[in-house]
Amino acid sequence: MSIGQPVKRLDAEAKVTARARYTEDMLPPGVHSAVYIRGTVAHGRVVSMDTRAALAVPGVEAVFTHADVPKILYATAGHPYSLDPEHADVADTLLLTDHVRFHGDEIGVVVARDELAARRAASLVEVVYEEYPVMTTPEAAMAPEAKAIHPNGNVVQRSEFSVGGDAEAIIAGADVVVEGHYETPITQHCHMEPLVAHAYMEDMERITVVSSTQIPHICRRIVGQALGIPWSRVRIIKPCVGGGFGAKQDVVLEPMVAFLAWKLGRPVRMALTREESMITRTRHAFRMHARMGFSREGRLQAASLDVVSNTGAYASHGHSVAAAGGGKLCSMYPHSAMHFQAATVYTNLPIAGAMRGYGSPQTIFAFECLMEEGARALDIDPLDLRLINAGRPGDVNPLSKRPIETHGLVECLQKGRELFRWDERRAAHKNSSSEVADIRRGVGVACFSFNSGVYPVGVELSGARLTLVQDGCVLLQVGATEIGQGADTVFAQMAASVLDLPMEAMRVVSTQDTDVAPFDPGAFASRQTYVAGPAVKAAAEDLRSRILEHAAEMTGYPAHALDLKAGFVVAVREPSRVFMSLEELALDAYYNKDRGSQLTAERSVKTRTNAPSFGCTFVEVEVDVPLCRVRVTDILNVHDCGVVINPATAKGQVQGGMAMAIGWALYEELLVDPRSGQVRNNNLLDYKMPTFPDLPDLDVAFVQTLEPSGGFGNKSLGEPPLLSPGPAIRNAVWDATGVKVNAIPLTPKALFPLFREAGLLRDY
Amino acid sequence: MSIGQPVKRLDAEAKVTARARYTEDMLPPGVHSAVYIRGTVAHGRVVSMDTRAALAVPGVEAVFTHADVPKILYATAGHPYSLDPEHADVADTLLLTDHVRFHGDEIGVVVARDELAARRAASLVEVVYEEYPVMTTPEAAMAPEAKAIHPNGNVVQRSEFSVGGDAEAIIAGADVVVEGHYETPITQHCHMEPLVAHAYMEDMERITVVSSTQIPHICRRIVGQALGIPWSRVRIIKPCVGGGFGAKQDVVLEPMVAFLAWKLGRPVRMALTREESMITRTRHAFRMHARMGFSREGRLQAASLDVVSNTGAYASHGHSVAAAGGGKLCSMYPHSAMHFQAATVYTNLPIAGAMRGYGSPQTIFAFECLMEEGARALDIDPLDLRLINAGRPGDVNPLSKRPIETHGLVECLQKGRELFRWDERRAAHKNSSSEVADIRRGVGVACFSFNSGVYPVGVELSGARLTLVQDGCVLLQVGATEIGQGADTVFAQMAASVLDLPMEAMRVVSTQDTDVAPFDPGAFASRQTYVAGPAVKAAAEDLRSRILEHAAEMTGYPAHALDLKAGFVVAVREPSRVFMSLEELALDAYYNKDRGSQLTAERSVKTRTNAPSFGCTFVEVEVDVPLCRVRVTDILNVHDCGVVINPATAKGQVQGGMAMAIGWALYEELLVDPRSGQVRNNNLLDYKMPTFPDLPDLDVAFVQTLEPSGGFGNKSLGEPPLLSPGPAIRNAVWDATGVKVNAIPLTPKALFPLFREAGLLRDY
Repeated sequence: MSIGQPVKRLDAEAKVTARARYTEDMLPPGVHSAVYIRGTVAHGRVVSMDTRAALAVPGVEAVFTHADVPKILYATAGHPYSLDPEHADVADTLLLTDHVRFHGDEIGVVVARDELAARRAASLVEVVYEEYPVMTTPEAAMAPEAKAIHPNGNVVQRSEFSVGGDAEAIIAGADVVVEGHYETPITQHCHMEPLVAHAYMEDMERITVVSSTQIPHICRRIVGQALGIPWSRVRIIKPCVGGGFGAKQDVVLEPMVAFLAWKLGRPVRMALTREESMITRTRHAFRMHARMGFSREGRLQAASLDVVSNTGAYASHGHSVAAAGGGKLCSMYPHSAMHFQAATVYTNLPIAGAMRGYGSPQTIFAFECLMEEGARALDIDPLDLRLINAGRPGDVNPLSKRPIETHGLVECLQKGRELFRWDERRAAHKNSSSEVADIRRGVGVACFSFNSGVYPVGVELSGARLTLVQDGCVLLQVGATEIGQGADTVFAQMAASVLDLPMEAMRVVSTQDTDVAPFDPGAFASRQTYVAGPAVKAAAEDLRSRILEHAAEMTGYPAHALDLKAGFVVAVREPSRVFMSLEELALDAYYNKDRGSQLTAERSVKTRTNAPSFGCTFVEVEVDVPLCRVRVTDILNVHDCGVVINPATAKGQVQGGMAMAIGWALYEELLVDPRSGQVRNNNLLDYKMPTFPDLPDLDVAFVQTLEPSGGFGNKSLGEPPLLSPGPAIRNAVWDATGVKVNAIPLTPKALFPLFREAGLLRDY
Repeated sequence: MSIGQPVKRLDAEAKVTARARYTEDMLPPGVHSAVYIRGTVAHGRVVSMDTRAALAVPGVEAVFTHADVPKILYATAGHPYSLDPEHADVADTLLLTDHVRFHGDEIGVVVARDELAARRAASLVEVVYEEYPVMTTPEAAMAPEAKAIHPNGNVVQRSEFSVGGDAEAIIAGADVVVEGHYETPITQHCHMEPLVAHAYMEDMERITVVSSTQIPHICRRIVGQALGIPWSRVRIIKPCVGGGFGAKQDVVLEPMVAFLAWKLGRPVRMALTREESMITRTRHAFRMHARMGFSREGRLQAASLDVVSNTGAYASHGHSVAAAGGGKLCSMYPHSAMHFQAATVYTNLPIAGAMRGYGSPQTIFAFECLMEEGARALDIDPLDLRLINAGRPGDVNPLSKRPIETHGLVECLQKGRELFRWDERRAAHKNSSSEVADIRRGVGVACFSFNSGVYPVGVELSGARLTLVQDGCVLLQVGATEIGQGADTVFAQMAASVLDLPMEAMRVVSTQDTDVAPFDPGAFASRQTYVAGPAVKAAAEDLRSRILEHAAEMTGYPAHALDLKAGFVVAVREPSRVFMSLEELALDAYYNKDRGSQLTAERSVKTRTNAPSFGCTFVEVEVDVPLCRVRVTDILNVHDCGVVINPATAKGQVQGGMAMAIGWALYEELLVDPRSGQVRNNNLLDYKMPTFPDLPDLDVAFVQTLEPSGGFGNKSLGEPPLLSPGPAIRNAVWDATGVKVNAIPLTPKALFPLFREAGLLRDY
């Protein structure tokens, strides 16, 4: 059984030896480079573009402007297609625009023999703009007189839902009411490999795009839509991907390289610089107002959350991010009523899209900050308050009305209490935190709930194909994508487990080529292990049957009397009786002239469940009050992700999420000049991501539940690790300093005025 | 119905616009070039190699000699693997050898940054040889004292078979006995794209080889065998192929580039020059002695054929070529007894391997020359003699004992008689051929039989996978390979016909990647349309069922009440009643949240029949007696290949074969210096292939039979077109001049002594 084993990642050696092939390692001969001409105002209209100097640069082959591209509005969001036009993503993007909506918007493209020539030429294009007022906040964009950024106005969409009764009325009548206003920043994914893609045509009809994408099959559709051609005329190839975190769940460069290859009849590549990548997709800044009403005993009776999401210049994932941030909360404390409303607003900022957590980091920040407020108001240990309100197995998700089969939140909190020595530390800090000490310590806790995939908002479909190779190895193709998170390894473990094969006998096709890969929308929504698992399982079970049927033909025993054991065909009743190796069987299946065939199995499976996963973070911080600097000294994530398929990669996944969350809570923010709309820190020197020296040991624990709807008992784990550290850190800082901060990141600059106001800072 | 339609080749535009990607268009960045160090004696042992000067050439990375490669003997022949060790191909090849067996044998390899440096370095290696006697003829190699070219001696293999009684005895008692000695030359395939391959590794384990090969799946096995690694560690990718004709049914460069990529940890390419390509694989020269015994009425009572095949320095396809050349004769005149024996002999010549026809051009040359001899001895029109003896439908193949369901030879001869105006022309030439004219005309005819695939000698297995794409198009993957012959187009027609789809809705994955392509051994033995057809048909029928089942779910009608019509789902009873387009159905199957899945279908099918195909050639020649020059003025091939799937591509296929046969009969011969063993004309200036100006109009006609064992009534057509023109031309020259020539090519040099001996040449 390979499930539950810490199998080494299949791609480990390929990646550390630099043998793994990424998009830019696959450039075809004769490829030209394309570079965007970017708007240098944040809001305006292009009146004229003088491209003569650009065209005169040696090596420049062509310059395209908004006038040269199809007038087809398309949506870039990497969502599964919806049959319901009401659910369609917002089609607000042209390949190139003359309405500049943010500083850096794509108004032209230069194609040249090499990137240097293209960049030089792009810088020589003279553009005359009619400038419009720049709006960087939702408030400005929603003002009655605001200039419309898109024809339908500046509110992309509004939504709301209520569960469990009239939340506002219940809050009004509650024993204890707390409320707060919370803000989260614009941040960026900072995947190592920037956005990069190239395209070529092998005939007069079909366009192949090689792209570092999380979503090759979706990408095919969107390229087809953007160019107005049938989808089967597009082929997407996804090689190794150097990180995505949601930025590559958007279709950004692919339609353009496809268009250029089509128009110019030669291969064309685009590779964004870090500076471009930083402004191309971001995490939505949320402004949230939250209220909670508790009974005196600490029962959360109702909560309300009002979100305004700043999506920047284009909808990208649109309102889905804010809406998802609300919906995914509901299974955490499922006995309370809840009212959620949200608006997503265009501004003249870089485009916010999908990013790990997809709305939940923001809403959970508000929710779990407010739970802390409640605990203080009730004078209940914040951990106990969560234990009182956490859901239990069998509870019903008040939004989806589906039972929550596995709900490990209580166990996570209890396990964390013990491992983190919560009570001991909390008491120690309470006693030791002198009001005059420069260095103060505190602890915090926060919980989360999350989904496993997008059902029922979107379709959940995944496919797998397995082939028995002549040497007895089994080759697995999946539509789900390896983007650095270890998906391939986990899928191989699943197949190996059904086939009772040693991992050494598993091979995985890691490249998705939409011509041949089974369909799967891709890596997002922490869906893959949950929804591709059943497809892998079903295909492996089919292959197992086909193998045993062939063994039956070879041995004369009925198939049901035969079994697979460690790569051999054995007798069910006497597993020590070995009939043949899988290699012997495979050779017969392929090469016996009179029986057998190539043994393959393929299954495409829709999933119609969505099991939430749960967990919590415990944090200890050390606050250097005079320097207004917060350091996380200890952090523990405890997860209920169902069965852990691979403890080694699961731990890595959690640690990566914790690091990302620490960055979000303490350091990271894309800073925008409110007048020019220009991003001030569009590079990794000025944008402060934590690196190893900035991070404490990242402790990880799991509470394993056996989720019946997961193919192998598993639930989501991709995004959840970064959901709860943020509020836990904020709560710990409050615990350490007595200062309640409702906006992140907790940078010295942000803390200084608050600490001063709280009288913590001596006058220097 | 797309079967029988002259559909334009799917790759036509890709190829004429140079957009099609061939192996060398797919080189990975950083690829190094490797060049063989070739032996400069035809027979000897390498005593020492001084590589210092080579290693000093700037850019040279490594030099490998026989001492550096695995001591694993492997077989290069592109045959399906056999479970019977008795049927294994002859494993006589090492990656590099110190026993030089022909002039140009591979004794080392240089790897350098570019090909120029590698070639320069290779030329600087100093080699000391111990020289052995050079044997270029089977007679020399079979002499008792002959030095063994390979450890097991110089006869690779012998075989014989008898059918229909004791042929020698029957001939001895026959009314009319004829016999002759026949010789055919060494020729070369002259595919436009020489042998070329490159390899790289994407991790520490698996080696990917991109190769211009006819046989990617076989190639994978042989690379695995040659390197001694499990087959699943090898991945072969076959892009567009610029012709093969059998030379690429051998595994030549792939093990070496795989070895080099493995050892050096970087991509390595090899591309043979034309000069190297010309000596790397050739067509076997046969020396044949044939006898026939006829009844006075013209019944062929028995025939015997004794073949000595010169395979050159390595076995390559070994004895299979000669053996196949005998076996495939048996269905042509199935009522006669026959004795066939053959020996295949090593010599110090370039390696003979598979080439279009695979032994049959040679044996049919002997057989059909001797039939002419019989006709003259019996004073029967040679066409009538063939009509008397040709098989009929329902006859039994005396070798396989299987009934010949479709036997269109008689109809082919009759149709040709009429179209060619045989009787009229024959009479005209007989009357007009003055004994003193310089320009003389004559006509000739010859027949052939051939097989469709390799069963029962080898396994016949083929796979196809179909996917319904979202836009209603259907994408086809096959294991069978497009190598320029039009296979993809024909497979697409087959699938379109089962699904009743317009051809515009068909897409074909033309690249075989052994990781994802269904298994099929590849393009050889004129097998693909015959044995891949049933797999395509079965998969298409499965997909059709899956589509109709989904339509049933959508409409509520039972699937059996629904049908597919021109890309729409219609009612069986009322085909004008359209329920939906395939696009609408596909969108629902993919994206309906609660039903459906990606609709794919895959089938891997073994074929256990082998339907012979038949045909004949009619030729008119004009012989310029003083110049000893033969010109084909008119030529007609008539084929029974079962149902013609695509008349346009079928005609092209036949014309290509006819042109190749005219070259073989009149012009082409690889000339070898008998002392040095060096090829004198290893280039396309000195080796005379006919080009368009050398060729007459190539007329083609078909007699369509409906072969029940063919998926679509079809039988082989790939190789047959070149089988009968050779003897027909020779027979026509005899008719024109009265000179009987028993060796080809009929060059002026060959004809001069014969014409002089016959008194045709005036003294000048």
